[in-house]
Amino acid sequence: DRAGVPEAVLADGKTPAEVAELAVTAIETTGRAIVTRLDTATATTVRERLDETAPDATVRWDDRSNWLVATTPAFERPSLDASVGIVTAGTSDAVPAGEAALIAEEMGATVARIDDVGVASLARTIDAVDRFRDHDVLIVAAGREGALPTVIAGLVDVPVIGLPVSTGYGHGGEGEAALSGLLQSCTALSVVNIDAGFTAGTQAGLIARQLDDART
Amino acid sequence: DRAGVPEAVLADGKTPAEVAELAVTAIETTGRAIVTRLDTATATTVRERLDETAPDATVRWDDRSNWLVATTPAFERPSLDASVGIVTAGTSDAVPAGEAALIAEEMGATVARIDDVGVASLARTIDAVDRFRDHDVLIVAAGREGALPTVIAGLVDVPVIGLPVSTGYGHGGEGEAALSGLLQSCTALSVVNIDAGFTAGTQAGLIARQLDDART
Amino acid sequence: DRAGVPEAVLADGKTPAEVAELAVTAIETTGRAIVTRLDTATATTVRERLDETAPDATVRWDDRSNWLVATTPAFERPSLDASVGIVTAGTSDAVPAGEAALIAEEMGATVARIDDVGVASLARTIDAVDRFRDHDVLIVAAGREGALPTVIAGLVDVPVIGLPVSTGYGHGGEGEAALSGLLQSCTALSVVNIDAGFTAGTQAGLIARQLDDART
Amino acid sequence: DRAGVPEAVLADGKTPAEVAELAVTAIETTGRAIVTRLDTATATTVRERLDETAPDATVRWDDRSNWLVATTPAFERPSLDASVGIVTAGTSDAVPAGEAALIAEEMGATVARIDDVGVASLARTIDAVDRFRDHDVLIVAAGREGALPTVIAGLVDVPVIGLPVSTGYGHGGEGEAALSGLLQSCTALSVVNIDAGFTAGTQAGLIARQLDDART
Amino acid sequence: DRAGVPEAVLADGKTPAEVAELAVTAIETTGRAIVTRLDTATATTVRERLDETAPDATVRWDDRSNWLVATTPAFERPSLDASVGIVTAGTSDAVPAGEAALIAEEMGATVARIDDVGVASLARTIDAVDRFRDHDVLIVAAGREGALPTVIAGLVDVPVIGLPVSTGYGHGGEGEAALSGLLQSCTALSVVNIDAGFTAGTQAGLIARQLDDART
Amino acid sequence: DRAGVPEAVLADGKTPAEVAELAVTAIETTGRAIVTRLDTATATTVRERLDETAPDATVRWDDRSNWLVATTPAFERPSLDASVGIVTAGTSDAVPAGEAALIAEEMGATVARIDDVGVASLARTIDAVDRFRDHDVLIVAAGREGALPTVIAGLVDVPVIGLPVSTGYGHGGEGEAALSGLLQSCTALSVVNIDAGFTAGTQAGLIARQLDDART
Amino acid sequence: DRAGVPEAVLADGKTPAEVAELAVTAIETTGRAIVTRLDTATATTVRERLDETAPDATVRWDDRSNWLVATTPAFERPSLDASVGIVTAGTSDAVPAGEAALIAEEMGATVARIDDVGVASLARTIDAVDRFRDHDVLIVAAGREGALPTVIAGLVDVPVIGLPVSTGYGHGGEGEAALSGLLQSCTALSVVNIDAGFTAGTQAGLIARQLDDART
Amino acid sequence: DRAGVPEAVLADGKTPAEVAELAVTAIETTGRAIVTRLDTATATTVRERLDETAPDATVRWDDRSNWLVATTPAFERPSLDASVGIVTAGTSDAVPAGEAALIAEEMGATVARIDDVGVASLARTIDAVDRFRDHDVLIVAAGREGALPTVIAGLVDVPVIGLPVSTGYGHGGEGEAALSGLLQSCTALSVVNIDAGFTAGTQAGLIARQLDDART
Ligand SMILES: Nc1ncnc2c1ncn2[C@@H]1O[C@H](COP(=O)(O)O)[C@@H](O)[C@H]1O
Ligand SMILES: Nc1ncnc2c1ncn2[C@@H]1O[C@H](COP(=O)(O)O)[C@@H](O)[C@H]1O
Ligand SMILES: Nc1ncnc2c1ncn2[C@@H]1O[C@H](COP(=O)(O)O)[C@@H](O)[C@H]1O
Ligand SMILES: Nc1ncnc2c1ncn2[C@@H]1O[C@H](COP(=O)(O)O)[C@@H](O)[C@H]1O
Ligand SMILES: [Mg+2]
Ligand SMILES: [Mg+2]
Ligand SMILES: [Mg+2]
Ligand SMILES: [Mg+2]
Ligand SMILES: [Mg+2]
Ligand SMILES: [Mg+2]
Ligand SMILES: [Mg+2]
Ligand SMILES: [Mg+2]
Repeated sequence: DRAGVPEAVLADGKTPAEVAELAVTAIETTGRAIVTRLDTATATTVRERLDETAPDATVRWDDRSNWLVATTPAFERPSLDASVGIVTAGTSDAVPAGEAALIAEEMGATVARIDDVGVASLARTIDAVDRFRDHDVLIVAAGREGALPTVIAGLVDVPVIGLPVSTGYGHGGEGEAALSGLLQSCTALSVVNIDAGFTAGTQAGLIARQLDDART
Repeated sequence: DRAGVPEAVLADGKTPAEVAELAVTAIETTGRAIVTRLDTATATTVRERLDETAPDATVRWDDRSNWLVATTPAFERPSLDASVGIVTAGTSDAVPAGEAALIAEEMGATVARIDDVGVASLARTIDAVDRFRDHDVLIVAAGREGALPTVIAGLVDVPVIGLPVSTGYGHGGEGEAALSGLLQSCTALSVVNIDAGFTAGTQAGLIARQLDDART
Repeated sequence: DRAGVPEAVLADGKTPAEVAELAVTAIETTGRAIVTRLDTATATTVRERLDETAPDATVRWDDRSNWLVATTPAFERPSLDASVGIVTAGTSDAVPAGEAALIAEEMGATVARIDDVGVASLARTIDAVDRFRDHDVLIVAAGREGALPTVIAGLVDVPVIGLPVSTGYGHGGEGEAALSGLLQSCTALSVVNIDAGFTAGTQAGLIARQLDDART
Repeated sequence: DRAGVPEAVLADGKTPAEVAELAVTAIETTGRAIVTRLDTATATTVRERLDETAPDATVRWDDRSNWLVATTPAFERPSLDASVGIVTAGTSDAVPAGEAALIAEEMGATVARIDDVGVASLARTIDAVDRFRDHDVLIVAAGREGALPTVIAGLVDVPVIGLPVSTGYGHGGEGEAALSGLLQSCTALSVVNIDAGFTAGTQAGLIARQLDDART
Repeated sequence: DRAGVPEAVLADGKTPAEVAELAVTAIETTGRAIVTRLDTATATTVRERLDETAPDATVRWDDRSNWLVATTPAFERPSLDASVGIVTAGTSDAVPAGEAALIAEEMGATVARIDDVGVASLARTIDAVDRFRDHDVLIVAAGREGALPTVIAGLVDVPVIGLPVSTGYGHGGEGEAALSGLLQSCTALSVVNIDAGFTAGTQAGLIARQLDDART
Repeated sequence: DRAGVPEAVLADGKTPAEVAELAVTAIETTGRAIVTRLDTATATTVRERLDETAPDATVRWDDRSNWLVATTPAFERPSLDASVGIVTAGTSDAVPAGEAALIAEEMGATVARIDDVGVASLARTIDAVDRFRDHDVLIVAAGREGALPTVIAGLVDVPVIGLPVSTGYGHGGEGEAALSGLLQSCTALSVVNIDAGFTAGTQAGLIARQLDDART
Repeated sequence: DRAGVPEAVLADGKTPAEVAELAVTAIETTGRAIVTRLDTATATTVRERLDETAPDATVRWDDRSNWLVATTPAFERPSLDASVGIVTAGTSDAVPAGEAALIAEEMGATVARIDDVGVASLARTIDAVDRFRDHDVLIVAAGREGALPTVIAGLVDVPVIGLPVSTGYGHGGEGEAALSGLLQSCTALSVVNIDAGFTAGTQAGLIARQLDDART
Repeated sequence: DRAGVPEAVLADGKTPAEVAELAVTAIETTGRAIVTRLDTATATTVRERLDETAPDATVRWDDRSNWLVATTPAFERPSLDASVGIVTAGTSDAVPAGEAALIAEEMGATVARIDDVGVASLARTIDAVDRFRDHDVLIVAAGREGALPTVIAGLVDVPVIGLPVSTGYGHGGEGEAALSGLLQSCTALSVVNIDAGFTAGTQAGLIARQLDDART
């Protein structure tokens, strides 16, 4: 761990061979390799190298959220007495929401997804209030105009982390409108970069660890 | 009128004397002068010139929304059988909301303000639903992250015009976050420029006139 | 319907399988599935899934404007006593203009296209004035410098919705010049995002519905 | 409170009279009025109105961080068993750091300032490590290139909230470089908008409250 | 002259004393001093210095377009057999239009202003066609959405130089929408920077000189 | 011709079939078809359609500058007594320079290319001064930092049109630095959009036509 | 010194009292206080505080380049065997050029100014080549389109540091065009931020110190 | 050489054949051809052409940093008594770091790489201090938030050139955050454009040459 955050390999800007080498080093050193933002070709290279060097490792690959986790049989994932809710408005928020869930889980938090509660159907958002209130910290994904985290933070009194999603076309598309909306939110959110599920997940995980400490 | 929109003098970028001259011409030609975005100094100049040239005119000046309207006793404002609701989240939306109200009224619509219903206190937003549904068309002002028009458009089935307001500081401040959020809205708004109360008011006025035509 | 707007699946950012599943749900629930911004591969997947699950549905696919509509035999499209004109300057405005037309039609409006009337040949624009005046509301597509909606709004007294098109290269390309020009228009347009034919069409449709109500 | 966040009046975009009225309402309703981003003229107006309406209130005004807090004798500030560290690189971070401190304190957290530890003198940054580790959550202010929060988050394992400060001139000035640097940070920060001390302070306060809950 | 363009002192970013010194040098060397973008205080300093050093010079100062020209009795302005038309949409285009006129005149061209022909009143634009066609080259000023140069270039077959004006507020304000619209124009304009009347005037002047050469 | 500019089909944003149809119409109506910005696939489609419909036409296709011109045997290209110089700094300016040359030639001007005279080797730039002075108007292409047009305009006294080229990577890449540099030039250039060889060529062609008129 | 760079107080974003306190500490600790970007009011406060606390210090204040340096009689400025040339195009480059000169001198370099050699008068630029070649390192200031550093770096073979200046209006104004042009330069410059004379001066000073080391 | 910088062919925006021709000319004229930013296809074309025209040349191709160097047996690379350190934070900085190393070496400097010392593991950064201090000038690559050059420049007293790397996604991605952070750095860096290893390498090489001159 690096100041509490599990070491993870960011595949962007690296060759498949480089990613695979870093994954091998990670599993050998810590018993776990986490790779994010990897495409199918890189995933294949990584799996092949892991097959050779850590044949008894368990490998999970999420080809929607583009992460891969490998653990040795000996590896023990931490387990925290704290829960993180991850909220999405619709299907297109799946990629970063899945990345956030992965990291928070690997840090040991209990993670639950609350999906399809976008404000375009406000009744559905409001119906979910109790599920929002069930968690110690919320990550709320926000594509397009990004109104959901603002609305939810007004309904709960736990910390809400806004996670802008690179959806939308035209002006403010690719998540820029969502990001700037979250930064301007009148309900006091903290924010991570567009599609930065990893960052949202680790922040939630760090808060969960503090709570676990306090509780135990 | 110019294709249905009352002629109005935009004071920005003109000297007080130029604005006054245009106002005098307007009242002489049409019986009414509308000046928008004028500061106190310009308002004074305009009033003085109107005192000289149209001493029996009625002059109204809104020093919060920065408009001035002068009408001769003979002038007859149109009256339309259609109503426009103008919604704001809070006090700082007052400037463009007041400008929008002015123009819609001068075009003859019945105009009502629905204030202080921002989504940070969602219960208050929801309590106002019936007031939103009372109108033929809504203008919803939106500063900061601009979530309100998206939420309202999901609750009503009349056309909603999003009016971004130049509030907020930092990234996406001065109304840019609100504008891009409205353009990205998942509830199908039409939009005008930041602080463009004039444009929002005229669009609502044009729709009101179509409805008045259809009704009478 | 969602506050008067027909539910539509936005294919961007979803896998073909996810889009197909949402389309199936839509047709099963409402008798109609509308999918926008779908590419050829997604269209194929959707058609195959619909063939299996709703074999008697009628499927229309526009591979220029990238939409697909499927309806069951039982589905009855609404029919409104109101007409929407959709104006383009040239061939490259076809994509969003076609999307706007689709939605306005699916909402029940009478829709007519008025094509190839760009201001570079102003005589042709002016010759079309009577066709512009034939409708209750106009959507005017605007690529490159986006002058056409401004010119038309100065000629008619019905509401004009400016629809910027992602044409043009270099500075202000991809529709950004058109969008900012429409927002600055001196003839009081309302505006939607670049290529947001869906939004323009629904706004026009909502106005059409208000007029239909008033007329009947 | 509004979902756990103390109600505060944002003075930007309001007239002094409006701000004063909102402050009076706040103190009458909740026993406390918090006003942020108010200039000297507004502060004077607010104090005068409070003198009239709540003559026994205690008023504190910070003319560097531009906030004012008034409390009635009966008001009891909450007190939480959790501590927030607020870190700055230098004198020019004082404005938002002071605003963040105010809000976290008003929410009941124990707040400590750790000043003048910018990375240009890295030895001083490193010498302060133990003071960083003394707190449950850190807010780290970041002007210019904004390297400090990244460096600190690499040294501690509590949640770090990056607070960009509107210093710096030229390209990336006014806090834009700091904001984008924090969003890109390789040490997994959560972030608030430029100068948004209020938001940083409330996020830290909400985490503090969760910890207090867990501890007591 | 510097490659055919009269030397002019740009007052921006210089102290009044520096501007005055450069003006004195110019009149002493060439018999003429042209100063652009000078405010009232600078104009006063320049006039005083010219009074002392060139007491018999003729000084003209335009406090709307912010230029000052001084010439000695001996100075002979060139005279070209070529004419430049300068077109504006409205009063707020006056500042750069006046600067453009000044320079073209000082280069010797015959200059005529064609004012108040903006496209919002298209009939007035079209009525002016013959006046547009009267000149060898046109400079067309363009504030807000900047549609006028595009429309005019479609009506005439002489070169049109688009001159964006820093009017308009909100997104694309301060002339940015006009500039990008002119760069995207479908009627093949050449363009100068926002408010760069000086540049537009010199380009027109250089074309006028070529024509004068060809004609005489 | 459209106000003096040869009609040209811009292939961007059109399907190959649409481009071909417009080309066929153009050659049938005017004896010439000019298509710009067409890729190889579109060029093939256009040639095939022209083979069928105008089998005796002469077709030229420039696959570097991406244009195609077809003329019937009967077509007579105009011929003007005026010359246009087109200057480039290096090989990567070839694309828009070739497009500019095409249009100026099709308008009838004498066109000469002056290549490889970038300011990085200033001696070579200066050696070319006489070749710059040989023409009535210059188009100067400008990639990367775009210094060449500024330097040349300081050396000649004919009108210079700056043509920014979409080269360069990183900040200000894709021609944005060149464009803004040309707009800021201290030697009074007129400018066209990035890669807008078409616009630069037509502007030069219009000036050439004016000179031809004056000379004959 | 801080890693070789003299400690300097940046006045931006600090109160006059804070600046004065930092200046007093600096002179007491190191025998010298350097303050940059201070306005007249701040300069007055600083001088008054220095008068009280270091009455025998020598104080120099440059109210054009906005810096102030105070040294005790005991202070010995270093002296390096290396020379820095600072080049400007015109009067408006004076502010950052003067700041750069100050710092390089305070670091001990021999500094010479080479003024008024902008490329608009290329002959003058070329005439100065020998003066450019006289120095070990050059700082070249660049306002407007910023062509001068590119041209000079092509003429000399010593390191050139480009210093963009916040001149110019409209698009790319305030030094943005110059900055992006320098970053794109085809003659391999290193660059500092807009108006960052301090940074340019220290970089030149550090190179001078390396050369002094090598020479002595 | 061109003012001390080895001539290099920038492959971007040129066809493979054009690049090959320029490489052939370079090796024939100077004994060496350097090509940067070339893809695999271009590299193949270049190698084939060199095989034909310079069969005895030595060709090195780096397919990670995308450069190719060919030298004739007779070519003698200069050799300088000065050393350049090139520092990276991680694997994804390899591309521009390798380009910088190439050019500095081809200019004759001794070049050493110091890799994997990013500030997220500050202990590793600090452990490398002696290796940083071993060189006459440092190039420090900086992706994501770009904190490394700022930290290092605070630790050493030689000139540091910041080289931003186009890593990172979302807001400030593609190197923009790193670039603006370096321009804002509080430790006085000079900077080159994003990914401009060529520029960084030549600046370091020019400083190295000055030092070699001073030393020998
Ligand atoms: N082409 C489109 N452009 C913008 N919004 C759309 C488009 N198509 C559908 N929508 C909206 O987006 C919603 C669907 O979003 P989703 O839940 O992501 O499928 C629909 O209900 C519409 O409000
Ligand atoms: N209003 C203006 N806008 C743009 N350029 C100008 C203007 N006035 C003068 N110039 C140009 O700027 C040069 C003067 O620059 P300077 O040496 O800073 O006084 C003149 O020779 C013109 O080329
Ligand atoms: N390469 C080009 N760049 C800019 N404008 C062009 C180009 N080629 C043609 N045009 C202009 O665009 C018009 C054609 O637009 P369209 O109707 O979309 O084919 C022509 O009449 C020209 O005015
Ligand atoms: N990778 C690179 N990045 C920036 N500039 C480069 C690069 N490679 C070469 N150059 C510069 O660009 C010039 C070559 O430009 P060109 O004539 O387009 O090949 C060279 O002389 C270098 O000054
Ligand atoms: Mg809350
Ligand atoms: Mg609705
Ligand atoms: Mg109209
Ligand atoms: Mg940490
Ligand atoms: Mg024309
Ligand atoms: Mg010239
Ligand atoms: Mg050089
Ligand atoms: Mg240092």
